[in-house]
Amino acid sequence: MRRLALLTTAVLVLLLTLPALAFAQDGPTVADLSLAMDTVWVIVAACLVLFMQAGFAMLEVGFSRMKNVGSVVAKILVNLAIAALLFWAVGFALAFGTGNALIGTQGWFLAVSPGQVNDVYGGLSWTQVPLSAKFLFQVAFCAVSLAIVWGTMLERTKFAVYVIFAVVFAGLIYPIVGHWIWGGGWLTELGMQDFAGSTVVHLSGAMAALAGTLLLGPRLGKYDDDGRPVTIPGHNMPLAVLGVLILWIGWWGFNPGSTMAAVPEIADIALTTNLAAAAGVLGAMGMSYVYRRNIDVGMGGNGAIAALVAITAPCAFVAPWASIVIGFIAGVVMYATLAFVDRIRVDDPLGAIAAHGMGGVWGTLSAGLFTTPELAAIGRPGLFYGGGFYQLGVQVLGIVAAGSFVFLASLAVFATLKATIGIRVKPDQELDGLDIHEHGVYGYPDLVATDYPNGNGAKIPDPLERTAEGTT
Amino acid sequence: MRRLALLTTAVLVLLLTLPALAFAQDGPTVADLSLAMDTVWVIVAACLVLFMQAGFAMLEVGFSRMKNVGSVVAKILVNLAIAALLFWAVGFALAFGTGNALIGTQGWFLAVSPGQVNDVYGGLSWTQVPLSAKFLFQVAFCAVSLAIVWGTMLERTKFAVYVIFAVVFAGLIYPIVGHWIWGGGWLTELGMQDFAGSTVVHLSGAMAALAGTLLLGPRLGKYDDDGRPVTIPGHNMPLAVLGVLILWIGWWGFNPGSTMAAVPEIADIALTTNLAAAAGVLGAMGMSYVYRRNIDVGMGGNGAIAALVAITAPCAFVAPWASIVIGFIAGVVMYATLAFVDRIRVDDPLGAIAAHGMGGVWGTLSAGLFTTPELAAIGRPGLFYGGGFYQLGVQVLGIVAAGSFVFLASLAVFATLKATIGIRVKPDQELDGLDIHEHGVYGYPDLVATDYPNGNGAKIPDPLERTAEGTT
Amino acid sequence: MRRLALLTTAVLVLLLTLPALAFAQDGPTVADLSLAMDTVWVIVAACLVLFMQAGFAMLEVGFSRMKNVGSVVAKILVNLAIAALLFWAVGFALAFGTGNALIGTQGWFLAVSPGQVNDVYGGLSWTQVPLSAKFLFQVAFCAVSLAIVWGTMLERTKFAVYVIFAVVFAGLIYPIVGHWIWGGGWLTELGMQDFAGSTVVHLSGAMAALAGTLLLGPRLGKYDDDGRPVTIPGHNMPLAVLGVLILWIGWWGFNPGSTMAAVPEIADIALTTNLAAAAGVLGAMGMSYVYRRNIDVGMGGNGAIAALVAITAPCAFVAPWASIVIGFIAGVVMYATLAFVDRIRVDDPLGAIAAHGMGGVWGTLSAGLFTTPELAAIGRPGLFYGGGFYQLGVQVLGIVAAGSFVFLASLAVFATLKATIGIRVKPDQELDGLDIHEHGVYGYPDLVATDYPNGNGAKIPDPLERTAEGTT
Repeated sequence: MRRLALLTTAVLVLLLTLPALAFAQDGPTVADLSLAMDTVWVIVAACLVLFMQAGFAMLEVGFSRMKNVGSVVAKILVNLAIAALLFWAVGFALAFGTGNALIGTQGWFLAVSPGQVNDVYGGLSWTQVPLSAKFLFQVAFCAVSLAIVWGTMLERTKFAVYVIFAVVFAGLIYPIVGHWIWGGGWLTELGMQDFAGSTVVHLSGAMAALAGTLLLGPRLGKYDDDGRPVTIPGHNMPLAVLGVLILWIGWWGFNPGSTMAAVPEIADIALTTNLAAAAGVLGAMGMSYVYRRNIDVGMGGNGAIAALVAITAPCAFVAPWASIVIGFIAGVVMYATLAFVDRIRVDDPLGAIAAHGMGGVWGTLSAGLFTTPELAAIGRPGLFYGGGFYQLGVQVLGIVAAGSFVFLASLAVFATLKATIGIRVKPDQELDGLDIHEHGVYGYPDLVATDYPNGNGAKIPDPLERTAEGTT
Repeated sequence: MRRLALLTTAVLVLLLTLPALAFAQDGPTVADLSLAMDTVWVIVAACLVLFMQAGFAMLEVGFSRMKNVGSVVAKILVNLAIAALLFWAVGFALAFGTGNALIGTQGWFLAVSPGQVNDVYGGLSWTQVPLSAKFLFQVAFCAVSLAIVWGTMLERTKFAVYVIFAVVFAGLIYPIVGHWIWGGGWLTELGMQDFAGSTVVHLSGAMAALAGTLLLGPRLGKYDDDGRPVTIPGHNMPLAVLGVLILWIGWWGFNPGSTMAAVPEIADIALTTNLAAAAGVLGAMGMSYVYRRNIDVGMGGNGAIAALVAITAPCAFVAPWASIVIGFIAGVVMYATLAFVDRIRVDDPLGAIAAHGMGGVWGTLSAGLFTTPELAAIGRPGLFYGGGFYQLGVQVLGIVAAGSFVFLASLAVFATLKATIGIRVKPDQELDGLDIHEHGVYGYPDLVATDYPNGNGAKIPDPLERTAEGTT
Repeated sequence: MRRLALLTTAVLVLLLTLPALAFAQDGPTVADLSLAMDTVWVIVAACLVLFMQAGFAMLEVGFSRMKNVGSVVAKILVNLAIAALLFWAVGFALAFGTGNALIGTQGWFLAVSPGQVNDVYGGLSWTQVPLSAKFLFQVAFCAVSLAIVWGTMLERTKFAVYVIFAVVFAGLIYPIVGHWIWGGGWLTELGMQDFAGSTVVHLSGAMAALAGTLLLGPRLGKYDDDGRPVTIPGHNMPLAVLGVLILWIGWWGFNPGSTMAAVPEIADIALTTNLAAAAGVLGAMGMSYVYRRNIDVGMGGNGAIAALVAITAPCAFVAPWASIVIGFIAGVVMYATLAFVDRIRVDDPLGAIAAHGMGGVWGTLSAGLFTTPELAAIGRPGLFYGGGFYQLGVQVLGIVAAGSFVFLASLAVFATLKATIGIRVKPDQELDGLDIHEHGVYGYPDLVATDYPNGNGAKIPDPLERTAEGTT
């Protein structure tokens, strides 16, 4: 009897430990796998978001004139580098470090022992991925927001302005808004719904762009003697649309990746994202056809972008049909805004204010309208689902607060720069193009210069004397 | 004694429930992880397939003349948007909804409760990923097939034709073929082997292209007064090859992703895919060198594409050595077909009939020849493995049935359009280029127009008067 | 009593088998999931590395003149095809097959039964992914190394040289170095730290490039009558930077993927990779500004590349701050090397010797300096962490041995080719451009030729008579 009891107990103990042993021998546990899978997904998504830099580069190149394209791509590289380093050093801590309602106050240089990650970075304690993965995903977002700033300021901005503003924006302005809405700040507390950053990323970039453009003024020749806008088309529609398509797939990392976990819901988010983009193309192209009887390539591209910006806030909260409505309206509103901006003498070569600014506003509002009860993981259901006006009010508050802050902070920085080093190149430099003056080489040397050996070009005389030791 | 029995029972019950409790505490279960991982893989693969739109855009831009490139990229955007929405609304239900041997009859707008997904979409009940993931992967395929249609019809088609045919193709024609072969239709029942769509996706696109081209006629200047073909080279080989390379990596989503599950076999499928592409480059380049003593860039690219098309049907069923044979023959056959098509006065600027049409036919046949017994998850082993002629017969039947259906249905649509709104632009528009007429702006304004302020261009006089409020 | 014992035993047996049954019913086990997840990650990473071919294509196109761009992209396609096939047939076996200290001696054509994979390919037995995944990741690396070879030899090399050298390099030279350092060879045994291939991939490519360039000589017009270097700028900075950005994200597969397993550490590796690249941009751009007062676009791009090359060896072994130091120094050293190489009359249009050669050397050394004790999975901690000079000595030995071997072997091949078929095109072909002579078509026909029907081009007279049956 005792022997049986002992035997039974022994077998039971063995049974209790067997699964653990088996797992230990097999290698990873379920928890290990879960962590690894989340990491893989977040890294792949971050990589897609990083790829958006190539999208912005091609978009801006396409909408610039040939004489300024070298400047565009140099700016992309330098801005990406600055964002990568500044957000690592201070920005990430300000945005996601544990702190107060306004700002994070710890976690500089990612220097923290593994056991304390969730304490130090309270703003991202909800995801289990390693600290480096949290950072990489977020720094890619910061770089996107910074890239948006310059869409309005192309073809006339001093290169030094790109460098200095990038430091302030990636190191301070963007992180503050990030903390308010995502990092545990006061808008987080109010339950603002901005899943992947219609406001945090896109509206922020657009408001900084607006501030800069107001101080910069339009390009030479953009308005005729009667003050009417003159079209200055970009030089390369294929590259512009390549940029749009790269941004489109980049958004498959941007929105679904904002789960920061490998969960089946990423597919639902990719679906709303994709439907919205499609509807945005048709909305903007349709406006172009109705008002001008043409199928404007740039409008189609900007329609897609405006819709993608708009669906960014509500992508995880709304039904597929709603995403189509949101995207279509975004395309239409973008078209109207573009015309309006042009008329009030704000020269925005890329349409960033229309696509990222109005798209961001509309998208943030739309979360307060269309969020369904079953998907409202944050905040409350939208107005159309009986959630009342509370959520919509929070969304409006967030838009106004974040938008105003970024606008005013950026205005202060750009005004300081204007009063000191200046923010605009000289008129002759603008006419010659930025490439030859600031970068020492044309973007397309064969097509514009005569003095390169064996060049096929030889059309436009080189405006500057070039030395033999120029560039390589 | 009773106490012991009770105790034993209690412990046993505890043991039985412990694993479940342990898992519940750890978070995800093995089943959760499996679902999440499959979803991640399918979404990543769908993203790669979506990226192929950029590949087609660059390929078509590269093979077009400068005056038509804006039209190409506008068409890509609009077609992608239409496919994304139409396939969501009706196409997916027709293709994969449970129905009869000819067509799916349920599942419109993806509107179905989660518990009924497998009942409603019987054609995809074999994969566990969420409905939205199933849809996204398949809609990306539909968009690829639609993109293929236009390769033959570049540089002379009215934009309205792109729009209207896209609706019919994505909403009806493509889904029907998809249902026959993949969705539980009559060719599914016969065991046709078309793993990732040599017939469903590529032959379908090419047959629609052929139908359209026959009604459209060749470009002006394509045939001289004696009826001999004149070369009209594309304008940008670097972008064409960029397109090929994007398609190449897109195929790493296209073929391995068609498992619609994260399984180790995706590596085997990527291997056959990659070997075939490599062999296709050499097959076509070799033909070019043997017959013309040059290394034709476009041929190399089309050789890769033809081989990738060919390996698409058998990629999961054949050995690596067979994939090399299949790819090499695809490159050679593509070359010969291209010359033949040119000679019979079918003007195919992109080589889509040769690459996607003949590539699709050869690939579908090759499954009936090279499928090995151990990999024949569908149908029977190929002829060379003692499987007899049954499988090859099924493959031939599938090619003939699907090809004929798409050709005739497309012919009917294009003929109707030709008889009503017309399908071809006017000769002067074709000579001036589509961009300036249909889109109101050149693809490369700086290089062709004189009247933009500060443009570097100024070579070719602008054929049309432009107004100040043109485009932005 | 007996009944109870029997009953207890029966239940115990049931309990023992239940988990297995449960798993069988659920589908995959934890081990299955682990294998599948590793496979997904390695395939995605391999796909990113394969995408680097598009990066090299755009980079080389951008740094070439218009008349040679078709040659560039044709070379990319053919080289990729040759690498894919040769490395499959013999290269992979030589590199990773079990063998001796110098070379692998088994595993040709990947022909091995599943149970013997780890015995036959001892060099990669540490990763559990399927053989096809092991191969695909490694073949993508081989293709990168081969692509690097040609950066110095652009715009004057006979196409046949690309073909023949590719066979020898992918089939023999690269695999030998791979075996020494990664495949279980003598440098593996010494504990050389080259995590993702600063030496194996990048220095190898650069040393072959140096050998070829010394025999080839500079481009016509590169040095003036006094022997001073003349700048021959590339023709397209936007595409060059697109190439850089594609390479940048490709490196997110290159370095983190070299774990060949889905582990959380991939995020740490992506972090060091990204920080280094950012610092490299600033290092090289800073040098450009300090020495020439301009913001050189090409320098920024090459700074990123040099830094990415440098962090490739130590990416898994060093702290984030060290990666910034490594990347910054790589950018600075690249700049200085570029100027030096130019002065000693080695004409390197792409800067490959500076970026991949010096970057590779510095990166390999830096592992011996900065490797931290806790990350030193291979070899010993670096000099700065008290590891002494042993590890640094091994790194130097590896650099010298691998560099010398590749240089001498490549020199022998190129010298043989020079003595037989010749390695350089004729001067008139070089002046006209390679495209029209070797490929029968211009890279940008509309911009350079007059005799295409309806072309928008018509600026530069066509240097060659073209026949109607030219190319398609």
